[in-house]
Amino acid sequence: MNRTDRFLRACRGEPVDRPPVWLMRQAGRYLPEYRRVREGVAFLEMCRDVDRAVEVSLQPLELVGSEAVIFFSDIFVPVAGMGVDLDFRPGPVVADPIRSLDAVEKLSDPDPRESVPFVFEILRNLRAELEKHEVPLLGFAGAPFTLACYLVEGHGSRHFSVLKRMMYREPAVLRELLGRLTDMTVAYLNAQIEAGAQAVQLFDTWAGLLTPEDYRAWVLPCHQRIAAAVDRERAPLILYVQAGGHVVDGMIEAGPDVISLDWRLDFAEAARRAGSRVSVQGNLDPTALHASREEIFRRVRGIAEAGKAARGHVLNLGHGCHPDTPADGVRAFTDAARALATG
Amino acid sequence: MNRTDRFLRACRGEPVDRPPVWLMRQAGRYLPEYRRVREGVAFLEMCRDVDRAVEVSLQPLELVGSEAVIFFSDIFVPVAGMGVDLDFRPGPVVADPIRSLDAVEKLSDPDPRESVPFVFEILRNLRAELEKHEVPLLGFAGAPFTLACYLVEGHGSRHFSVLKRMMYREPAVLRELLGRLTDMTVAYLNAQIEAGAQAVQLFDTWAGLLTPEDYRAWVLPCHQRIAAAVDRERAPLILYVQAGGHVVDGMIEAGPDVISLDWRLDFAEAARRAGSRVSVQGNLDPTALHASREEIFRRVRGIAEAGKAARGHVLNLGHGCHPDTPADGVRAFTDAARALATG
Repeated sequence: MNRTDRFLRACRGEPVDRPPVWLMRQAGRYLPEYRRVREGVAFLEMCRDVDRAVEVSLQPLELVGSEAVIFFSDIFVPVAGMGVDLDFRPGPVVADPIRSLDAVEKLSDPDPRESVPFVFEILRNLRAELEKHEVPLLGFAGAPFTLACYLVEGHGSRHFSVLKRMMYREPAVLRELLGRLTDMTVAYLNAQIEAGAQAVQLFDTWAGLLTPEDYRAWVLPCHQRIAAAVDRERAPLILYVQAGGHVVDGMIEAGPDVISLDWRLDFAEAARRAGSRVSVQGNLDPTALHASREEIFRRVRGIAEAGKAARGHVLNLGHGCHPDTPADGVRAFTDAARALATG
Repeated sequence: MNRTDRFLRACRGEPVDRPPVWLMRQAGRYLPEYRRVREGVAFLEMCRDVDRAVEVSLQPLELVGSEAVIFFSDIFVPVAGMGVDLDFRPGPVVADPIRSLDAVEKLSDPDPRESVPFVFEILRNLRAELEKHEVPLLGFAGAPFTLACYLVEGHGSRHFSVLKRMMYREPAVLRELLGRLTDMTVAYLNAQIEAGAQAVQLFDTWAGLLTPEDYRAWVLPCHQRIAAAVDRERAPLILYVQAGGHVVDGMIEAGPDVISLDWRLDFAEAARRAGSRVSVQGNLDPTALHASREEIFRRVRGIAEAGKAARGHVLNLGHGCHPDTPADGVRAFTDAARALATG
């Protein structure tokens, strides 16, 4: 079974020999090879540099044995295309936070193929290269709620109080902003699929900060619209929520092909809930990549066993790879996935 | 029913007219009256200043209608008593992080009544004052795992990778450190009870970063030892874990009187699990204090309804009050609790 087939079948809940494996933020600072390519290049510059982005996207294939490639970029790349002035220091910082209906209405609404053409060039180049290896290519986007967190707050935050205040006090502004971001996200993901992405992941990093009730009111409708409008015939949709153990039912209800879960939940129970409705992705604690090879193998076996309760399982971390991760740990993780085939 | 009776009965699961209410971090920067007393005084200095600490501890009684008083201090106060050189900028920063057995063994093991006598003077003064008002006095301590997170990492962190690496790579060092901190915590809480605390809360802010399996291996044994050794006849024990929705069963199993939960879980389901075994505390999202008075009342009614599935319920936030919280929102929260009595 080649890597593309295994991955796409697992996403759709069709029989496979063993779970495929890749890692969120797998091209990154933990790889010296990445740091060399990145040296002296600003982060957004790197996202726009087609050759460099292609090069670092491909590194994890050989270096750590990943079995899928996600293109190197950032969730804010298409937002910059909407006319938002943003910088990375190193987290995203928005020069003029969006806090009024007026500011929302000033956002431009360009065709992403024109505003960020380099994204699709990166994808086309990667797809051509990956066809030779029979490895699947993943696209991705930040989910509307998470993008809104930064756009309203102006920067990262532990609690996103400004965003939450808008939710309670100016719901119409937030609703309009989420609507605009949802439209953009649909267009952006479909353009990625058009350019060769064989699956797409939606990252809702901060939606897990909400109560189950607020998640249903604010996040679920965005996810549902995206799940309904993305070209799922051509590319399955993976939905990730960080620390989303309390919103698993809502994630399933949104109707993606795969829900991607972090380690702060009972993975077996979540897989049971997913059942025949969606596949699951996850969920090793990224810090566990510091453990011994034996311990990583033991944990992967446990996760794979738990994942069997769902119709399909893609092995992954529960969160992006940290910069201080040892590459040996990442290699042990992908090796452990391959060892599952032989029992 | 006076406030002390209502609070202690709710903790022990005895019948009450309505849930009592207080807030974590209720004496703090959101109150101008607090900022005035605090002005020009370093944080640890403020914790050692008996008169000032008593004054700010009492402020929330009148200013926002809290129905219990927790003494003003910090979870690191007794750790400083163990010979750790630490500073607040504004989070705790440890000059020499503890990363070896040698460093653990160098920690001193003083009687807290001698190393931090001011804590007990604060408690005695508060108790004398609160007796007049029939308001309960709460003591508290940081839980061993959370203290260890900072002591090993050296400072706050989103992932506490250094601590986690120790967990995987040098379990004996971490086990020894947790053991020492558990002993200290038991002595510290019992001395607080001796000095007049009528209930004590254990804050395990970071234990929710663990998988359910790692929580059982590393955190549960500490909580169990503390629950067994604290003088519960005289003061019920409340156990708080931030973002601990995935470890509720473990929290119950530790055997405290009350589990304190944050808003990122299904509170009704958690209360059902608590059932007749423990009471529950929580769980308003602190950012919801930005909402309108009507919306705060609506949320409190929902939380109170959900809490009925447990043997007892103490109304609280799911996390400490943020510095940008409007005092009006806090007042609406405690008013909403009182309104529950009349339906």
